[in-house]
Parts: sequence; structure tokens; C-alpha cells
Amino acid sequence: MSRQRERIIIVGGDAAGMSAASQVRRLRPDAEVVAFERTTHTSYALCGLPYLVAGLVDDPGKLVARTPDAHRRAGIDLRLRSEVIGIDLDRREVIVWDAEARREYREPFDRLVLATGARPRTLAVPGREAAGIFTLHSLDDALALAAWLQNERPRQAVVVGAGYVGIEVAEAFVTRGLPTTVLEAAPQVLTLLDPDMAELVERAMRDAGIDLRTSTPVEGFQTRGGRVVAVDTPHGSVPADVVVIGIGVEPNSELAGQAGIELGDRNAIHVDERCRTSVPGVWAAGDCADAYHRLLGRSVYFPLGTTANKQGRICGLDLAGRPARFPGIVGTAITRFGETEIARTGLSEREARAAGFEVAVGSVRSTTRSGYFPGATWMTVKIVADAGSGKLLGAQIVGGAGAGKRIDTVATALTAGMTLEEFIYLDLAYAPPFSPVWDPVVVAARKLAREV
Amino acid sequence: MSRQRERIIIVGGDAAGMSAASQVRRLRPDAEVVAFERTTHTSYALCGLPYLVAGLVDDPGKLVARTPDAHRRAGIDLRLRSEVIGIDLDRREVIVWDAEARREYREPFDRLVLATGARPRTLAVPGREAAGIFTLHSLDDALALAAWLQNERPRQAVVVGAGYVGIEVAEAFVTRGLPTTVLEAAPQVLTLLDPDMAELVERAMRDAGIDLRTSTPVEGFQTRGGRVVAVDTPHGSVPADVVVIGIGVEPNSELAGQAGIELGDRNAIHVDERCRTSVPGVWAAGDCADAYHRLLGRSVYFPLGTTANKQGRICGLDLAGRPARFPGIVGTAITRFGETEIARTGLSEREARAAGFEVAVGSVRSTTRSGYFPGATWMTVKIVADAGSGKLLGAQIVGGAGAGKRIDTVATALTAGMTLEEFIYLDLAYAPPFSPVWDPVVVAARKLAREV
Repeated sequence: MSRQRERIIIVGGDAAGMSAASQVRRLRPDAEVVAFERTTHTSYALCGLPYLVAGLVDDPGKLVARTPDAHRRAGIDLRLRSEVIGIDLDRREVIVWDAEARREYREPFDRLVLATGARPRTLAVPGREAAGIFTLHSLDDALALAAWLQNERPRQAVVVGAGYVGIEVAEAFVTRGLPTTVLEAAPQVLTLLDPDMAELVERAMRDAGIDLRTSTPVEGFQTRGGRVVAVDTPHGSVPADVVVIGIGVEPNSELAGQAGIELGDRNAIHVDERCRTSVPGVWAAGDCADAYHRLLGRSVYFPLGTTANKQGRICGLDLAGRPARFPGIVGTAITRFGETEIARTGLSEREARAAGFEVAVGSVRSTTRSGYFPGATWMTVKIVADAGSGKLLGAQIVGGAGAGKRIDTVATALTAGMTLEEFIYLDLAYAPPFSPVWDPVVVAARKLAREV
Repeated sequence: MSRQRERIIIVGGDAAGMSAASQVRRLRPDAEVVAFERTTHTSYALCGLPYLVAGLVDDPGKLVARTPDAHRRAGIDLRLRSEVIGIDLDRREVIVWDAEARREYREPFDRLVLATGARPRTLAVPGREAAGIFTLHSLDDALALAAWLQNERPRQAVVVGAGYVGIEVAEAFVTRGLPTTVLEAAPQVLTLLDPDMAELVERAMRDAGIDLRTSTPVEGFQTRGGRVVAVDTPHGSVPADVVVIGIGVEPNSELAGQAGIELGDRNAIHVDERCRTSVPGVWAAGDCADAYHRLLGRSVYFPLGTTANKQGRICGLDLAGRPARFPGIVGTAITRFGETEIARTGLSEREARAAGFEVAVGSVRSTTRSGYFPGATWMTVKIVADAGSGKLLGAQIVGGAGAGKRIDTVATALTAGMTLEEFIYLDLAYAPPFSPVWDPVVVAARKLAREV
């Protein structure tokens, strides 16, 4: 047998997959890098889709960080409209469906990266297939929704689910002047926040004119001529000529599961700190994989674009023989509704209790800038700590411009394992246009430090 | 002898002194707390003065965090227009000049806190005493300057010094539409920044119409009828009918020095981590004291309002028998010039080299938000690390809205002693309105991590 170039196959052409592909391409010019993507898009900003719908981003092309052509020019053998439909671990081959040529073929690999992403959770209720009902999890989804808004000129929108995507879509509709009802099965929006913090978001949504109904599950869709006309709930029906369902995502891990690769939390592909799966020679990264949660001390499914990029980088480095260690996540997330910024990191009070911590919490309402400075707005910070050790466990922020990104200070402190006492003496930046003399995150921690 | 209440004397009624007074008042209701302040103001925001001059803050009262009356209601024996002019450590007494009653008296103490603050550095050149020449280091300074601007309607301003205060005053003058020249003796503005970063600030100042002249020391002031009319430099004279001198501050430490209390860096009162001076029973805090610099491993004079508040708190806790430990500073500072935010933490490249580190640096220009998101502006981040260990040493940021406070992430990481490799995998908040998927501070660190 003649010695061949090593062949690395990447399944999935978005953040994680193409980060891995780019890293290994750069560091291992000798290897062959083949990437399969079932759509015609690569490396685009999933998190930007609601803003495309809002019209704040005017050109879908702007969401594409790197085009297929750019990847090819970089030396990646990128195959679009090519879906990997099976993995044969014995023969070290993937089975590919080429939608263009309408044929199936096998491609051998030496090493394999699974970056198959996630898909929207389904809502199995009558009428779900009617026209006018959308999800928002791909560029094609966003284009379809934008076309519907443009062509059908809907007059009454319903958003099902008040998680991050639901809230961002609701903002998009409000921005477009479309009357909007948000239906959430849980008793609060954004269940990653504690109820007291979620309430601040709910108030902002209602103030913007949204008809927000919590504890209101969707039981079905009424249709006329195949088009949605209303949404049924236990408390009556809501007229709607456009609906977006955003009730979370689940990992595309069936390929891996069928091949016998170990799955973990919520069926995500379980990976170690080098993004290796349970099968030698197979890596996974991004929204199809789990990630180690530093505060919980176990791997969880918490799919986010930032983690996808980091895991992709780790994969690429590992494939290139330069192993790096992903130290894990702390559960940071951020979004906004209109002018209201919403951020969280670590564990919420509820999550911390569920994880068995003895919890102490402190909340403050403070200004984003010195109170006397023009543009100062209000923000609320909630800090969660371990009552015994005083160790920081998490924070949540809801507030005006400049509030949200302060969560990074807490995320960094959590990563370092700081106590409240260490946290309150951090040397944070102060000048009147930026902050009160004690930063609001510190004020919350100080309040708590007195009690712990 | 009958047992008396313990008497704690505080010298200085601003941030550090009144923080200490308030803490000990709250925690030790049994003690007598006496505070001497030589002006009639307490607890006001020194950092807000330039914005009062700019007219952005319309009422000086808004800068007062806590009035004398409020302190008195809290049970502090606050004596205004009362200057401590001597400390008699043998007899444990302070000597007070009561400017109201025009008399001197002695007041015994059991424990003493020196919070005498700082004063502007003087510029010993001819004409310095002319009318129209100001410094900006007290509420009275600001009111005097504002009155001059109001009554004399100057048409040509000169700011001497391009440190934080100089830049903020220049911004204030530009805001008021006053043609402004800034004269700086050093070859660059803001010597706490490296030249490459300072250049970005210089560009912003010039773009705003400021006549900025670096390497231009002031040799004297020309006067007419006792009023300033021009500023002399080696490169010619600059007409001026209002001048603000902002060339740094020096500690008010003479009282302490004369009493035999140890002074340190730049004659600041040397304190330990509990803010105790070299003399038992005497504490110091704020702009008259030094602070331990965690990266330099020694105490330095780096006077800032945030540190003053923290040291005041530490003092108060210690006096109340609840010793806390001030872990030190990392050299964080922030300001802005117009829309340009300017921040730094840790050591600059220059400072790190001077301290003997083998230095690696990385700079990037990135957007504050996802590049496609409305409102995204440019920011430049420079990261400094130890070339051998990869340990973070510092960062500098110059950029648009949202850029500056990102320094807190680095300040927190510095405090935790993180390496570049740890820093780049931090779980920082990402959504398109807030950040690119890799935060700019991380992009700079990634660039550097490849080189270290």
C-alpha cells in the first residue's frame, strides 16, 4: 500500500466545523481536509438571524463570516448540499447524500469531526405544518420568514416560546410595527433567569406593547386554506397570520448515536476537554456536543455560538497535533429586548439550589453610570454565592445600555473561583461616564458579603 | 480614671475619610467618631468635576454623594472648615485650626485615620498666579472655573497637561465650543498608555479640533492687568484667556511625614494591606496613601477614587475590629474623550519592560459589536503578556461606545493571575448587539498566544 495523505473529514459547515477545518488547514498543510455541508451556506452568524428579520441587518450576506469560496480558496475541499447520512466506523467511512447529483457515496476518513449542530425542538400539535408558521434556526429559515413578512404583510404575530430566540423575534416584530403576542408555557420568560429577574424583562416586553402570556402552552394551530389563522391555548385562541416557534433546540446527534458514539446530557455527543468523543479518531464540537460546566462539575448541553467557535478551535488544534484543553463553560449568555439588556452567568438561584448548594443571594438596583451623569440608566444585578464558603456561583443582570456586558467581569471571576470577598475588591474601571464609583456588580456582591 | 468612649478621629471629609467614618459608625455605635474637613464639602465626586465644567452636570449639588448634614444625622461629629495642622503622637492629639472661630485647639484621639487626599502638582513658572489660571481638584476649583467661563466669556483656552484631567477638561471646553490648545511636555498624551495607543487618542483630539502640541513644556504665562493673556513655550506663545493646569497630583502627606509616619512611593503615606501606617493606632487611606500593586509586587502611588473608597472601607472595618485585607490594585483606569473611550489595566508595554519583564504584545482592531450590527464601532486592544510564562500583564483599549469597560474583564483576569491560554477560553457574553463572537479583548490575546 502506498502512503497516502491523511484525510480529515468534517461534518457540518458552520461555526464549529469550519473553525476546526480552518485551524487544521492552517497548521497541517500536508493533510487533506474535506467538509460536508447539507445547505449552501457556511460559517454564518446564527445569532444574527433575528436582526435580519427585524430589518436591522439589511443584507443576509453580511451574516456570512466566510463564504464557501473563501473556504475553498483556503484549501478546504468543501462540498455543499452534501449530507452525511451514516458513519461506518468499522470501515472508517462516511456515507454521503449528494443532493445535487442525487446520489449516495462513501468517503473514507482517517479522522472525523462531527459538527452537525442543533435543530429547533418540535411542537407536535395539530396544524403545525400550516403555511405562516416558522422556526428561526438557519439562514434559509430567516429568508423564508422575511419573505412571508414582505409578501403576505401579516397583521398579527404570535411568538411561541419566550427563550432567547423568542424574545429576539418578538423584538424584531415590534421593531417592524407588527402587533405581537408571546405565548410561553412556563410561568415566566427566560427560564435561565430567576423569576424575580425575569419579571423585569416581562415588564419591558409589556411596556413595548407585547401581549405576553406566560403559563400558556400552545395546543394547536387553526388554519384556513392551509394557512395559519390562530393559535389555540387552554385560555382561548389568539389570531395570528404569522407564527414563529422558538422553544429551544436539540442536538443533531443521531448519526453519532447510531454509530455507537457515547451521548450525554440531553443526547448531546459527549466530548472530553480535547473535544474527543468516546471513539478514537472521532471528535465533536459545537451545538451537537456537550461541554464541561465548571460550576456543576459535569458536562451539560448548553449550545452557544461562542462555545462552538472555541470547541472548533480546540478540535482543529488537536487534529493538528497541538492539543489544547477547553476549560469549560460557566453558563454565560446575553441578549436584549429593545433597550433592555439581559445577561446571566454561572448558576441562577434556582439552578444553584437544584445542584445542592446552600445559597445566599443579593440584589441591587443601581445606575449604569454615575447617577448624575447624562445617559445613566437603571440596572438590576443579582448575585448568587455559596453561603458557606462565600464563593461566587453566578450573576444575572437586567438593565439599560452598558449593563449587560458587565456580566463578563463575573464570568471571569467565576472561572477564577473567586469568593465574594475577593470580588468586591477587584480593581474595576471607574469614571462617571462609565460607572458609579463602586460598579453595580460589586455593590450587589458587597450587599451579599455582609450577609454571608 | 473613668472609662471613656473610644474616640476615633478622621482627618479629611472626602471619599476615603467618610467611607471609613461611615463604616466604623455603623459597626461600632459605642465609639465616638470625629471627622475634620477644611472645606465646607464632604463626600463629593472629584471625578465628576470636568463634567460640571462641561455643563453636562448642571448642578454641583448632584456631585455630592453625602452632605455634611447626612453625615451628622448618621452620628458622625463632623467639623467643617477645620484643618488639622499637626499631629502629636506622644500625646495622641491632633492640632486643629478652626477657620470659622479663627482659633487653634487640640483634640485627643485613641485612633487616627489620615485621609488628607492629594493636591495638584504645581507649575513653578512666571505668571502662574495670574487670574484666569485654574486647577481642577476640588468642588471650589470647579465652581471658580465655571464662574470665570460664565462671567469672562473667554475665547481661547489652553490646557496644560494631557493626562486624564487635561483630556477631560479639553473635552469640556470643546463641548462648550471653546477653541482649545493642549500643551503636553511629554512626547505623547496619557503617559499611562503606550505611544501606539496614545496616538489613537491624539488623533481623536485633533479630529475634534483641538490644537494638540506634545513635547511642549510651559515656560511661563504672559499677563495683562493681572490676567493671563498667553502661555509661553519653547516653540512660541499661545494666546489664552483661560488656562487649566492638570499635570498630576501629589499626596498631602506632610502632616504624616512631620509626625514621623513612614512615607513611600512619591511621598505617599505607606500603608499595609489593612491600611495601617507605620505607627500603631494610625491608619491612612485614599489619595494621600500608597497601595500595593499586585503585578509590580510593591506599593505604589496610584491615586484613584475607587481605591480611596475601598481603602476607606478597609480602614473602617479594621477600626471596628473586623479586619479585612485590601488585596491591592492592578492599575486600572478609564476615561473618554468625546466618543472615544480610553482604558488601561495592569502594566503597559513600557511599564512591563521597565519592571524587568520579558514582554510579548499583541494588538488588534476589531468592532465593538458584530461587524454587521448597527452601532458597531471600532476599537483597538493591546494586550501585554510575559513572554516566558504567557501570564497576562496588562491591556489597553481605545475605541467607541462599549469599548472601555471591557477592561474589567482583563483586570479581573490579572487579579486571578491568568495566562493568555486561560484567558482566551473565558466564557464571555456574546450576542450581535454586544460583541463579535470572539470578544475583542480575546482576539488580541489569541493573536498573542500564537506568538508567545
